[in-house]
Amino acid sequence: MNSVEDASDCRQDFPSSRLDGTRLWKRLQDLATIGATLEGGVDRPALSPAETAARRRVIAWASELETTVSVDLAGNLLFCLEGSDPHLPAVLTGSYLDSQPDGGKYSGAYGMVAAIEALAAIAVTRRRHRRSIVAICWMNGEGSRFVPGYMGSEAFAGLRQIAELLACEDASGVKLADELAAVLAAQGPLPTTTVGFPALAYVETHLEQGPVLEQQNKQIGIVSGVQGVRRFRIQVLGEAAHIGTTLTPHRRDALRSTVKIIAALDQFFSAPDMGFAVSQLRVKPNAPSIVPQEATFSLAIRHRENRILTRMGDTIRLICESEKGLCNFIMKELASTPAVTFSPVVPEAIEIASRRLGLESMPILSLGGHDAQSLHHRCPSGIIFIPCRLGISHNSAEAIEPAHAEAGAKVLADVLFQLARS
Amino acid sequence: MNSVEDASDCRQDFPSSRLDGTRLWKRLQDLATIGATLEGGVDRPALSPAETAARRRVIAWASELETTVSVDLAGNLLFCLEGSDPHLPAVLTGSYLDSQPDGGKYSGAYGMVAAIEALAAIAVTRRRHRRSIVAICWMNGEGSRFVPGYMGSEAFAGLRQIAELLACEDASGVKLADELAAVLAAQGPLPTTTVGFPALAYVETHLEQGPVLEQQNKQIGIVSGVQGVRRFRIQVLGEAAHIGTTLTPHRRDALRSTVKIIAALDQFFSAPDMGFAVSQLRVKPNAPSIVPQEATFSLAIRHRENRILTRMGDTIRLICESEKGLCNFIMKELASTPAVTFSPVVPEAIEIASRRLGLESMPILSLGGHDAQSLHHRCPSGIIFIPCRLGISHNSAEAIEPAHAEAGAKVLADVLFQLARS
Repeated sequence: MNSVEDASDCRQDFPSSRLDGTRLWKRLQDLATIGATLEGGVDRPALSPAETAARRRVIAWASELETTVSVDLAGNLLFCLEGSDPHLPAVLTGSYLDSQPDGGKYSGAYGMVAAIEALAAIAVTRRRHRRSIVAICWMNGEGSRFVPGYMGSEAFAGLRQIAELLACEDASGVKLADELAAVLAAQGPLPTTTVGFPALAYVETHLEQGPVLEQQNKQIGIVSGVQGVRRFRIQVLGEAAHIGTTLTPHRRDALRSTVKIIAALDQFFSAPDMGFAVSQLRVKPNAPSIVPQEATFSLAIRHRENRILTRMGDTIRLICESEKGLCNFIMKELASTPAVTFSPVVPEAIEIASRRLGLESMPILSLGGHDAQSLHHRCPSGIIFIPCRLGISHNSAEAIEPAHAEAGAKVLADVLFQLARS
Repeated sequence: MNSVEDASDCRQDFPSSRLDGTRLWKRLQDLATIGATLEGGVDRPALSPAETAARRRVIAWASELETTVSVDLAGNLLFCLEGSDPHLPAVLTGSYLDSQPDGGKYSGAYGMVAAIEALAAIAVTRRRHRRSIVAICWMNGEGSRFVPGYMGSEAFAGLRQIAELLACEDASGVKLADELAAVLAAQGPLPTTTVGFPALAYVETHLEQGPVLEQQNKQIGIVSGVQGVRRFRIQVLGEAAHIGTTLTPHRRDALRSTVKIIAALDQFFSAPDMGFAVSQLRVKPNAPSIVPQEATFSLAIRHRENRILTRMGDTIRLICESEKGLCNFIMKELASTPAVTFSPVVPEAIEIASRRLGLESMPILSLGGHDAQSLHHRCPSGIIFIPCRLGISHNSAEAIEPAHAEAGAKVLADVLFQLARS
């Protein structure tokens, strides 16, 4: 994979030359009709009927190729394009089909359609590849219905026990195990495999979800690593009382303490390189004349350095302690995904492929999390970013350009092919 | 009603001497089984099956007396003990049977049972009363299901249009008109009357819902007036985005702006005589990885002086404006109940009756709202307070003493009787 080998390749026989950008865009718009929202986005909770329908659509597309389709015990769908030496560790790509509630139509879906189109392009390339290439549809990428996300990829990478994910429940108490069983039944009969197998490398494509590539006028982002994230849930416990007759100094007002805690955390986490957000808050009993008895909020902090993430995260408890007033609190860390710096194997392959295709690329740090963070613990991994209009994501207004979508898929096809030949 | 007339009364013939305190306590405990919660309180939303069952129980008790039972078009139940001159303006008492969610078993219920027992005691008194005495069960006293409260009493006092209340919806979109129709059907056939009629005076009994009487070791609080309250709903509008990739300065985070607004309001309304509380807050989409797009909270401010309430309330908009950051907001005033100072007629009658019964009393300002605030606009009104254990109310731990419950009902019986003889 040095430039000498690169120059010796026959340019027109790279799979990028066979990639069907028109069909890719058509399929993206087709997927977007499944779980479509009035606002122009999609709502496809993990393991919902909508996500199942999207899975069936992708299975149908993959079945037109010479791939074998299977599902593993964590609910990950596997589309395998066999190499001439299938016993060698495989080359992987992947994405997901669930969405944020009222999310955009490209997060996840783009990576999945790009993977299928890359496989299709590779399948019709005259040159052979030794290693098998496997496109994976990860179970629960977003983590908005079942918390946290990356469940399928974490199970694949051996970072999470299957039993633990199966026991997980959504907000209305529905067990993941039950929903997964329903999805497997609805998907149609597929061979079932154990979770995880030897892999040479993992490459994923995604829109940037930030504004940098667009602002810098680059077509490809070569992701160097991903910020780490720690997610916490804090439950503040007060006491119900009459809001009129119970004077403020005597109230154990869970919402009032929560506001003080969040305001203090917001100030503490104000450094420009520190990601901090409170995205969820629920109040009980949430009645007009009762002092809030309980307020539960969840927060995420992000940073590129695990050392800082550890230290800052551990300060949260102290801030809650100092701002809780007359209330008590219970704090739980829901998930901790360390920051990752990808080994150079995949980023270098992305750079070479981009250059060969005449695409402008730049290295970039991913601020949002990706399944590649899980795979990084299993094999050299990386992510291909394409520009995202105005950096808007997790919003129905999320948008990408057809030309960028095609360019990203071409880079993916060539990178997968090149790695599979190694 | 001067002390000469008072001294000339035949002490043993006051209805207080006939009041059955044991039955009063038994009936209170009986009512508390309707909609009982595991925590020892009650959950009886206005116009729910539980409240209807409580209404039927009270109708059954009243039917054992020589009262006529009717219902008005606002859903208020009327129990009338006819006087010898029923064309004179009547003397009124009243309370309500709905509760806060997981509320206490004495708020509302105590006033209602005390009213029925006072009527029972008056009915067996040998001396006659000229004016009719009417005990009213007000529709939607608490205002926790249908916002705001005091709907029945406000309609009675001509402060609110019937059509307006009938159109009101609860949080799940159920119309008050539909629920009221169901309640009227379930209550059994009763004569229906128009809303409101001439009244000489209105007296209500309630537990204090604060700690003052207990701390001062008084049995009776003579309520001099009620704090005013203004209720607002503020909807903060931001934009959904990825919480990891959208940096804080670019986020239009509705929850973050809301926290800043509430913290600033909390500081602004910190004067000891100012009541301020945020009791409800809802976040949308309330998902782990999406910047909150919308946060809606409701707040109430209270003060004894309408001038201050007006001025302070009008400042809320300015504070929202200064703290909203990149978000917008929509503010709506849900209800405004002015502060009230009762005319001396009823408070003086309460004082005389308390003294005659050898009970320790004190004047007190009510910090919480009561239906007497509505009636004040119709006729001289007042409230008899009894002590409330530790001042705890709007909580399943709400508690009163049997002796206090009996004392309050005795004062009520004598006051109603005395007024009805005038």
